Amino acid sequence: MRNIKLTIEYDGTNFNGWQAQNKAHSSKLIAHSPKLRTVQQTLESALYQILQEKVRVTGSGRTDSGVHALGQVANFHTKSKMPVADIKRALNAVLPEDVVIHKTEQAPMKFHARFGAQSKIYRYAILNRQHRSTRDNRFAFFYPWKLNLNLMRQEARHLLGKRNFKSFQAADKKPRPAQRHLKNISVRKKGDFIYIDIESRGFLYKMARNIVGTLIEIGRGKLPAGSLPHILKSKDRKLAGPTAPACGLTLLEVKY
Amino acid sequence: MRNIKLTIEYDGTNFNGWQAQNKAHSSKLIAHSPKLRTVQQTLESALYQILQEKVRVTGSGRTDSGVHALGQVANFHTKSKMPVADIKRALNAVLPEDVVIHKTEQAPMKFHARFGAQSKIYRYAILNRQHRSTRDNRFAFFYPWKLNLNLMRQEARHLLGKRNFKSFQAADKKPRPAQRHLKNISVRKKGDFIYIDIESRGFLYKMARNIVGTLIEIGRGKLPAGSLPHILKSKDRKLAGPTAPACGLTLLEVKY
Repeated sequence: MRNIKLTIEYDGTNFNGWQAQNKAHSSKLIAHSPKLRTVQQTLESALYQILQEKVRVTGSGRTDSGVHALGQVANFHTKSKMPVADIKRALNAVLPEDVVIHKTEQAPMKFHARFGAQSKIYRYAILNRQHRSTRDNRFAFFYPWKLNLNLMRQEARHLLGKRNFKSFQAADKKPRPAQRHLKNISVRKKGDFIYIDIESRGFLYKMARNIVGTLIEIGRGKLPAGSLPHILKSKDRKLAGPTAPACGLTLLEVKY
Repeated sequence: MRNIKLTIEYDGTNFNGWQAQNKAHSSKLIAHSPKLRTVQQTLESALYQILQEKVRVTGSGRTDSGVHALGQVANFHTKSKMPVADIKRALNAVLPEDVVIHKTEQAPMKFHARFGAQSKIYRYAILNRQHRSTRDNRFAFFYPWKLNLNLMRQEARHLLGKRNFKSFQAADKKPRPAQRHLKNISVRKKGDFIYIDIESRGFLYKMARNIVGTLIEIGRGKLPAGSLPHILKSKDRKLAGPTAPACGLTLLEVKY
């Protein structure tokens, strides 16, 4: 047996996320609805095509429906002896246009894409100009209003470190322990884009997009400066800003 | 009467260029075939929608089918008194997803987008890595083989200045006077991309893509170093490289 590590790019627009979130979707339903295709299934069926072996692909974590990746990591065990460079080539030949493999590596048998992940870096891209774009609509949130980046940066600092992120946890999910360790957060302008990069070991469901939605409200002046410590302390999702659209979010990197 | 100057971005993928090249396409045929839509027509019908006036839009020049623009310039005369900022907003509201107006300005009556153009800058984008991309397929030419950029730069220098570009003129068009003045050409690497920027007052039909196709052959080692002076002198299209695909080419800027 070998353990193969994959580094994966995907355009999340037409995927129901990395893996179906809802157990209620029976596999029969998924098979019949193209809207419920997932990245994990797509990889597993491509691997079956090239290895003639049913493998289980384990991702570093789920990405939500519509969220993209440039550096998602996954692993699978296989009996195949196919060289890793050939696996990459063969996978990229059979995968659909919206998934591509950047790297295939042989990993130690104990490597586990989810349990081994030390942190993940997500990037949220905002197209911040008066007019939309013909090229970036799929990968950025078009937001034409002025944003005060300094204010956003100042507020973002309050999120750093080990904190309870309950206020940023999706309201429609059953609550989970909400303590997370935010290692880095930056707000940068580059041309017409604003990039918000967030690094954490783990993320609650929709946490990154809820943080971004809240920072946008602050940058726009809809929430007053100094709101963040109060929002965190309240543990009340209703005090934070709206969930920013999935299209702006990309999983950039997983660190091990 | 006012003369309005437009700066326009478009994704050329689903356009038959700025304007139909072939007079044989009757307007009736164009009206019935979505594949023959042009950027010029699209702008004229959007302007008719918002101004209730039939205007003629003059572009700085045609872009070929499949070629993109981030800074195409055009002008039109109108009796309308609508403020230019409102024209921009209204146009962007009615234009399809693959066209967007960056700027609307009132220009002197004598301003003519084609005759006044001093030079145009085209950028050719090559995605130069082993695997394709899920985001840049529409706007870059995926070329996975190694290219010697220094060689490409050295050869490109031979194209600078006033020269006869007959060897780079599309073979399928009736020949036109082929003297052109190439003001700048650069070959740069940025991440996984190679950008070839070409500035000239005028371009022959497919000239930019034929230059790029030839430089790629040189960078790949299929044409020997020192080929370019020979190709130019021959005035023979068959000695130059193939036409690079339209998807990689973008009209960046028109200078007046």
